[in-house]
Amino acid sequence: MKASNFFVSTYKEAPADAEVVSHQLMMRAGLIRKVSAGIYNYMPMGLRVLHKVEAIVREEMNRAHAVEMSMPVIQPGELWQETGRFEKMGAELLRVKDRHERDFVIQPTSEEVVTDVARNELRSYKQLPVNFYQIQTKFRDERRPRFGLMRGREFIMKDAYSFDKDPAAAQISYQTMRQAYREIFDRFGLKYRAVAADSGAIGGDLSEEFQVIAATGEDAIIYCPESDYAANIEKAEALAPTEPRPAAAAALTKTPTPGKSTCADVAELLAIPLQNTVKSLVLATELLDDAGEPAGVQIWLLLLRGDHDMNEVKVSKIEGLNAGFRFASEAEILEHFGAKPGYLGPVGLLKPVKIIADRDVAVLSDWVCGANEVDFHYTGVNWGRDLPEPDLVADLRNVVAGDRSPDGKGVLAIERGIEVGHIFYLGTKYSKAMNATFLDVNGKPAFFEMGCYGIGVSRLPAAAVEQNHDERGIIWPDAIAPFTLVICPIAMDRSEAVQAAAERLHAQLLAAGVDVILDDRGGRPGAMFADWELIGVPHRVVISERNLNEGQLEYQHRRQTESQKVALDHVDAFLREQGVY
Amino acid sequence: MKASNFFVSTYKEAPADAEVVSHQLMMRAGLIRKVSAGIYNYMPMGLRVLHKVEAIVREEMNRAHAVEMSMPVIQPGELWQETGRFEKMGAELLRVKDRHERDFVIQPTSEEVVTDVARNELRSYKQLPVNFYQIQTKFRDERRPRFGLMRGREFIMKDAYSFDKDPAAAQISYQTMRQAYREIFDRFGLKYRAVAADSGAIGGDLSEEFQVIAATGEDAIIYCPESDYAANIEKAEALAPTEPRPAAAAALTKTPTPGKSTCADVAELLAIPLQNTVKSLVLATELLDDAGEPAGVQIWLLLLRGDHDMNEVKVSKIEGLNAGFRFASEAEILEHFGAKPGYLGPVGLLKPVKIIADRDVAVLSDWVCGANEVDFHYTGVNWGRDLPEPDLVADLRNVVAGDRSPDGKGVLAIERGIEVGHIFYLGTKYSKAMNATFLDVNGKPAFFEMGCYGIGVSRLPAAAVEQNHDERGIIWPDAIAPFTLVICPIAMDRSEAVQAAAERLHAQLLAAGVDVILDDRGGRPGAMFADWELIGVPHRVVISERNLNEGQLEYQHRRQTESQKVALDHVDAFLREQGVY
Repeated sequence: MKASNFFVSTYKEAPADAEVVSHQLMMRAGLIRKVSAGIYNYMPMGLRVLHKVEAIVREEMNRAHAVEMSMPVIQPGELWQETGRFEKMGAELLRVKDRHERDFVIQPTSEEVVTDVARNELRSYKQLPVNFYQIQTKFRDERRPRFGLMRGREFIMKDAYSFDKDPAAAQISYQTMRQAYREIFDRFGLKYRAVAADSGAIGGDLSEEFQVIAATGEDAIIYCPESDYAANIEKAEALAPTEPRPAAAAALTKTPTPGKSTCADVAELLAIPLQNTVKSLVLATELLDDAGEPAGVQIWLLLLRGDHDMNEVKVSKIEGLNAGFRFASEAEILEHFGAKPGYLGPVGLLKPVKIIADRDVAVLSDWVCGANEVDFHYTGVNWGRDLPEPDLVADLRNVVAGDRSPDGKGVLAIERGIEVGHIFYLGTKYSKAMNATFLDVNGKPAFFEMGCYGIGVSRLPAAAVEQNHDERGIIWPDAIAPFTLVICPIAMDRSEAVQAAAERLHAQLLAAGVDVILDDRGGRPGAMFADWELIGVPHRVVISERNLNEGQLEYQHRRQTESQKVALDHVDAFLREQGVY
Repeated sequence: MKASNFFVSTYKEAPADAEVVSHQLMMRAGLIRKVSAGIYNYMPMGLRVLHKVEAIVREEMNRAHAVEMSMPVIQPGELWQETGRFEKMGAELLRVKDRHERDFVIQPTSEEVVTDVARNELRSYKQLPVNFYQIQTKFRDERRPRFGLMRGREFIMKDAYSFDKDPAAAQISYQTMRQAYREIFDRFGLKYRAVAADSGAIGGDLSEEFQVIAATGEDAIIYCPESDYAANIEKAEALAPTEPRPAAAAALTKTPTPGKSTCADVAELLAIPLQNTVKSLVLATELLDDAGEPAGVQIWLLLLRGDHDMNEVKVSKIEGLNAGFRFASEAEILEHFGAKPGYLGPVGLLKPVKIIADRDVAVLSDWVCGANEVDFHYTGVNWGRDLPEPDLVADLRNVVAGDRSPDGKGVLAIERGIEVGHIFYLGTKYSKAMNATFLDVNGKPAFFEMGCYGIGVSRLPAAAVEQNHDERGIIWPDAIAPFTLVICPIAMDRSEAVQAAAERLHAQLLAAGVDVILDDRGGRPGAMFADWELIGVPHRVVISERNLNEGQLEYQHRRQTESQKVALDHVDAFLREQGVY
């Protein structure tokens, strides 16, 4: 490709609304252009990256025997009503009525349509397993689109859906995809982690996220440097302490803590470690009688160490809380505790509540908590002596760096990541909702066991840029670079030798299948180099008359700060060594 | 590819709503599945065809130095308001409001967005020419979607937009695209014609349609078998007759024609050739005074031969009619003619009207027309004697087969076609509406000269099927076949020799880059052959134990009715001869 036949458009400044580095650099490098909030043009330079991402995804999906098809962007509302998602998805789902006032949605994913395909096309267990995938435009009407392609509204996703005859077969399909995802992410040339994720309402352990490591990532990734344990923060288990609870040493004392309503303030006032304080979170669940009618409210007190944060996913799985909970109202709190939030605790309640202690709280002795009286806390609180043992001890919190790894192989570390893939065992959630069955080996109708597997095709380049950039611009991995190598001729318009050498190398690399661009725009060297460094092409060859006279050209990798001279008759071998071929 | 790793789904019957053969066969062959009216899943078999079409289009567009980008499916209404198309496009344009009640449209094309790109990105004439293209999902909310992919609502289009510094440069961009389109359509392997088309309100002659020839096509294509003249019916000129008007021979006679209000009926009653009758079409235009206020109505009488049809596009270009016309109301007709339609004519008007005679009417003598009295016609009418010469003589009609070719090289023929491409010189229509300028060579802002160039990517396979099918199913040209060659092993599960030979040939063809599928589903020969004939794979190799014992296999092209034996050691050379490699 010659730059004069392509479209290169770089800017010195990023627009004011570009908050993160990937957004800034992708705008400056001319990869994307904003059309509306969260809606972008993929400019020629950016589209090349997307096509490379797509090609890798497609190859590996095909290799894993997934079958590509394409489902419509505009999908009938009726299918979405069958699963209830037409209403449930809320404002994120863009709905539209056609000229006949029929409901349609702009697809955010395609579970409904693909399940409809399955129930029409897959009639016998003999046709299973099948894994359909598509690479298609999606739309989610985010309340606050931002960060460029990172959280856009219109985006491109690869979504795959597996159909199996039973859970064991579905496991195999899931594992096949898991392996394919590893191949795909390995090929992208990015540092990533596959982390265990919570599988939500479905249950089971079959859900993993593929996170591209980046300091700016939105997600906290928990991993063990000494093993291959990795999970997202929702999922990572905080193990029970191994040390037993120490014996009580201090007396229960009501201590004035005027105006100190947080654990941190109390710890500071009393000059004690934050880990000795306990915070009280009060939840409420609605009780139903045998007829399913409302029958009052159950109040729950969750106790966590002052230095720990509640993990909502873990809490939402506890029996009694797993059908949905809310934070208690101030009236409910006053009724049970006689005090307002900030000074609550489990000692001296007005009315009984269910008490759940985090594992780390259950082994504390001589701890500090609110005294259920404004401006007072108890110190020297002890289980069994000052209050009964908790109704339940459970893992209620997010892990923190330094916690023991759940696999027992070291301590946990935390880094940040950007989610670009998610694989998920769905079970029969959608097949039951849509009555999608096949005839099993006994000739009886059975619901499909499903899995779904997504890759954020248009988010991936943004994640790649977050991970790979410097003050000069983007640094693409070879596999997804818009061009693998750029030839920068110096003053080509004034030197036939330079032009001939540049054209020859260009033709030679093209013939060898290298994705090369020759910058024949005739710009000055400084501006030319700055453009390609901003754009992030990994390999650069500079051809100048002076070097040619010495029988050389200059090569520089985008990660290097200095160029090196390469003898002309060694160029081919040299570029092979650099992995250009 | 092995069929067991792919998805083959054929049906014996087409659904009842499939009216045309391409829709029927594409449904039966499992290429598409309906999701909603005019909205389809591209199933794995169909998507392969689309991908091949896309690849050919992309290669040739790139070769012509068009630059690929991708514009969003969901586009902001504001841009569409700038050109007025937000309102003008009517119900075909699917409009949607986002969660913040902002207007968006689902793109039917992308003139507005690409012109916005140009005005932001192309600042100097030095950056021109540029031709941006995309291959993207489009939506048009057709009132009556039908014929499968032929007239769908969601479809895939390649749309390109050229930007030039002046009309001469735009001509060159247009001609480059014209040539690229010829390369593209040649590569598809379909019989097609590039036909001159009317360029509508823009004027000029730069518009051509690419029509795939098919007896079932919606469009009439005019061509000259003795030359390369071709045009659509809107555009094709009906030349003026070369013979002069004969002298008047008959007397003007008012003749009773009770109940005969059509030319055909009158000709039959009077036993005269239809060509001697003249029909009267009465149009009206609104007159404006100097201040632009309504100032009455002008009535026009158009005269065409009874065997000819009016061409609305030609009429709409006549001075006085080119700002818009309507058919006259019955009241207006009565006021000017004193009679109701069916018995109108230019002789004996109550009030003057402007008379435009078609070229073929202007040379008639002794003709027949309505007498402006119910149940009466005049015979023996003659220009100059019975009425003044017409105010204007013009080409008002559609050409018919046998007319002289406008290039003077023979007579015209008519065939049917399906429009799958259209190239168009736009001039400054969009750039002016959106104030899209660049700095010209003098540093002054100038409007871009634009062209647009479309290919109906998802309609093309349907057109290909309309052109290429038989009673057994589809017959794909090699270039866009879902698979080039199918290997059908007979009783592979019972013969290791058959299995080994099939696997060997499959591996060998794959390695050579042939798009081959091995049907390892284990079906019976009859069903297996019927499937692949329905699907339309052009080359078939059958491997059976009996043939192997004779050192042979069987080959059959989809267009052949008999297979031929090929010696195993000759297979490679044979398949090369068939164009498989």
